[in-house]
Amino acid sequence: MTTKIVEFERPKLKNPIFVEGLPGIGNVGRIAAGYLVEELKAKKFAELFSSHFMPFVLLHENSSVHVLKNEFYYWKAKAPNQRDLIILIGDSQSIDPEGHYEIVETILEYLQKLGVKEIFALAGLSIGEEKEKPKVVGAVSDPELIKKYEKYEIDFQSVNKIGTIVGASGLFIGLGKNRGMKGVCLLGETVGFPIIPDPKSAEAVLNVLTKILNLKIDTSRLGKKVKEMEELIKKVEDVQKKALGQLLAPPEKAGKKEELSYIG
Amino acid sequence: MTTKIVEFERPKLKNPIFVEGLPGIGNVGRIAAGYLVEELKAKKFAELFSSHFMPFVLLHENSSVHVLKNEFYYWKAKAPNQRDLIILIGDSQSIDPEGHYEIVETILEYLQKLGVKEIFALAGLSIGEEKEKPKVVGAVSDPELIKKYEKYEIDFQSVNKIGTIVGASGLFIGLGKNRGMKGVCLLGETVGFPIIPDPKSAEAVLNVLTKILNLKIDTSRLGKKVKEMEELIKKVEDVQKKALGQLLAPPEKAGKKEELSYIG
Amino acid sequence: MTTKIVEFERPKLKNPIFVEGLPGIGNVGRIAAGYLVEELKAKKFAELFSSHFMPFVLLHENSSVHVLKNEFYYWKAKAPNQRDLIILIGDSQSIDPEGHYEIVETILEYLQKLGVKEIFALAGLSIGEEKEKPKVVGAVSDPELIKKYEKYEIDFQSVNKIGTIVGASGLFIGLGKNRGMKGVCLLGETVGFPIIPDPKSAEAVLNVLTKILNLKIDTSRLGKKVKEMEELIKKVEDVQKKALGQLLAPPEKAGKKEELSYIG
Amino acid sequence: MTTKIVEFERPKLKNPIFVEGLPGIGNVGRIAAGYLVEELKAKKFAELFSSHFMPFVLLHENSSVHVLKNEFYYWKAKAPNQRDLIILIGDSQSIDPEGHYEIVETILEYLQKLGVKEIFALAGLSIGEEKEKPKVVGAVSDPELIKKYEKYEIDFQSVNKIGTIVGASGLFIGLGKNRGMKGVCLLGETVGFPIIPDPKSAEAVLNVLTKILNLKIDTSRLGKKVKEMEELIKKVEDVQKKALGQLLAPPEKAGKKEELSYIG
Repeated sequence: MTTKIVEFERPKLKNPIFVEGLPGIGNVGRIAAGYLVEELKAKKFAELFSSHFMPFVLLHENSSVHVLKNEFYYWKAKAPNQRDLIILIGDSQSIDPEGHYEIVETILEYLQKLGVKEIFALAGLSIGEEKEKPKVVGAVSDPELIKKYEKYEIDFQSVNKIGTIVGASGLFIGLGKNRGMKGVCLLGETVGFPIIPDPKSAEAVLNVLTKILNLKIDTSRLGKKVKEMEELIKKVEDVQKKALGQLLAPPEKAGKKEELSYIG
Repeated sequence: MTTKIVEFERPKLKNPIFVEGLPGIGNVGRIAAGYLVEELKAKKFAELFSSHFMPFVLLHENSSVHVLKNEFYYWKAKAPNQRDLIILIGDSQSIDPEGHYEIVETILEYLQKLGVKEIFALAGLSIGEEKEKPKVVGAVSDPELIKKYEKYEIDFQSVNKIGTIVGASGLFIGLGKNRGMKGVCLLGETVGFPIIPDPKSAEAVLNVLTKILNLKIDTSRLGKKVKEMEELIKKVEDVQKKALGQLLAPPEKAGKKEELSYIG
Repeated sequence: MTTKIVEFERPKLKNPIFVEGLPGIGNVGRIAAGYLVEELKAKKFAELFSSHFMPFVLLHENSSVHVLKNEFYYWKAKAPNQRDLIILIGDSQSIDPEGHYEIVETILEYLQKLGVKEIFALAGLSIGEEKEKPKVVGAVSDPELIKKYEKYEIDFQSVNKIGTIVGASGLFIGLGKNRGMKGVCLLGETVGFPIIPDPKSAEAVLNVLTKILNLKIDTSRLGKKVKEMEELIKKVEDVQKKALGQLLAPPEKAGKKEELSYIG
Repeated sequence: MTTKIVEFERPKLKNPIFVEGLPGIGNVGRIAAGYLVEELKAKKFAELFSSHFMPFVLLHENSSVHVLKNEFYYWKAKAPNQRDLIILIGDSQSIDPEGHYEIVETILEYLQKLGVKEIFALAGLSIGEEKEKPKVVGAVSDPELIKKYEKYEIDFQSVNKIGTIVGASGLFIGLGKNRGMKGVCLLGETVGFPIIPDPKSAEAVLNVLTKILNLKIDTSRLGKKVKEMEELIKKVEDVQKKALGQLLAPPEKAGKKEELSYIG
């Protein structure tokens, strides 16, 4: 392939904002963005496939299959203080380092065509303990942005302790900058197990995001939704881990004596 | 390379159905499709080579070699209720995640040129125990297809328990959908050891497939054929595992102290 | 991507010399070249991004992020006995073998356009012990160069004991030769732990280089500068190691029985 | 890069035969082909570089470096019963499965331009024990070739026991067939440790090859030559093993808890 976007419809959007929520720590970004898609009844307009996802299909209850993918949704502003949105959710991030760059760059190029100049990347921040009220920590592509967003409940002080953001969310902000896009990464504090979705952290992130975007979202059904998602997320992660292990694990028999001796 | 198809002959086919049977769990798909090729005396018209197969040649009894490959065969319908067929068999699937996508996409693109709109992917389904009468479990690219095929002995209920189909068979159905192809995956229940070919499961899959395709195939020689195949299959798997292990296994000496210290 | 250079400005340089100092053993090359950039007040004119770097962003104290990159600086000669310089520093080298070739070739092609015919690659040489006065060991693209540079305090005798130079520094000299570039590798002796930056070794390399280039550099602040760099370098290396481990480590559960059995 | 051939001179050859001898088991092929180059005073006309070789340079006694490479030599027939030759030797084979295909295909394409229709691939065959008189086992691209070559001391019976030939030698024969080239693989029996060069096995292979090609070669200096080569070969293998280990070895600290948890 290696990474391609299949577009069903080219939406006409006015200065759209891009919101990203792919699977990751506590699946915070994935839950928040997925809930946003449902509540806004955003419309799917494109799908992304990549050979940097695991080579398998997921099986639905109706016996139909789907290849691992990322999905693009759009939503048109309903009020003057709102903005058109493009929301990205998906089954998976890249399974290899190189793929992260390829996928993010492919998406950024596509977003540029759609007129995107602002990015909100939603993700989890592993802090190793559960918190009653998880904070939302912020990172920006440009320090100027802090002034604009510090009035929302975002902690722009703690980010330095983290040091790095690994995966798509960080790259969207960092590589988007090369294309003149302004980016904010909203990181919800969470225990740090990717297998256990953290709806509380996702809610914290959603609360900040919807305030910024002037959206009214009822987050009361978030917990229930996460329960439904949990099974699918677990399925992907289980197979991914098992399959990755089998692909990467060297057979135990391969002894030292034989090292490289197979090449005639 | 990386993946290329060498075509000997461009067959003129009328609305052909594609049947895929590559090595996998219990080699169910490989055995079923291979037997079909022999019984129908299908004609080879193309071969696929890929740098995502292991880099070695197989040695035949007459001292000649062949590079690992997949093979395309065609068969023309003999009766009005039959359909032209393209059958894919082969020595190997991709040895890395990325290659699965590349190989399946290369094949689908080629099949599109040959006019294929329907796919039957044959594979094994690991259930961890031996069954006297293995079932055939089905997965589809589109739930509409279930109505069409539920009259055959296909279990469309159990598929949800599986969760995923890893490798080429799933991708053929899943990625074929992006090209407007209708796909059914027929999974024969089997113990789940790839090294031990399972002729009983392959027979179950063949019985369903030949009924759908209105073919008359004598499956009595299947057991004997599998014995003959077994040696070749074992050979490929042994070398593959050994070689993969040697390529991926880090030398044991490489201590912790030296980590990354080799870069000047 | 995979590797791309973003140019801010195309400097007009006269027969420029290229000086390379990327992270590596003891970070000797990185420290020496970085200090040179600061002391000369060299001007950044281009950045290099690559999918062969780890897929993460670094977080600055001001909450802004940057993607791992290499940076090109230029400096114009101030005196008749000096030469224009292009200096390369960066956060990282490639994390996979293939990437080293791709990145070095991409840079060499770019340097050719900028008129570079001479290369100085700065690096560390792991000797396993600390020395009061670390030597600078030299390797060349062409034995003729030894005559020209043996008057400087470079040890051209010990190089044979090393056997190889792994990573970018060696490739710059070796592959540059294919493009008619003359290259000298200056290797500062150091204990050999990449995590601990070695300012003493970097100073030894700088002293040789500045004599060759007729530059006057005050090396007294080198120790202090290294302290400042240390934190950033450690951050990159920690995450890189942790992330690489997670990407490459097969999950422990994947047992022997299941080997490759996941492919249907 | 990824794989490129740098040509110094395009030799005018008449129906040339290609002889391949790259490093491998017992370095049998490398020693035999390297000795042939020296004895025939064959002339180097091209070099091949590849990002599928390890990213390091080798250091010579005169402090100069060279990037790992393969080298093409030619020799023009001196007598009517001889044929023009192209001989390939080199420092390394590909370090990853994919690279073997890429390098062999790049070379075959180049050879086709040079008019090559016949290939002799020289390699070792690991038998696990030392033999006073190692046999030369043969494999062919086409069973017809056995008739032509069975009068030479080649064992065409044992090949079936081997099952496979891993690496470049097998692929040259197997993929060359797709380009209408006739290929013979001459495998000298050897203990099977790649680190220990086996001059006796190489001599057996050379004796068969020179008879076929009507060449008169004094093999008495072979043992001495091998001693000289041994050091270089060991150097490459040591660094390659160490470096590969460091690139592939996951840091031990990466515990189970953290699995994939690094992605935000």
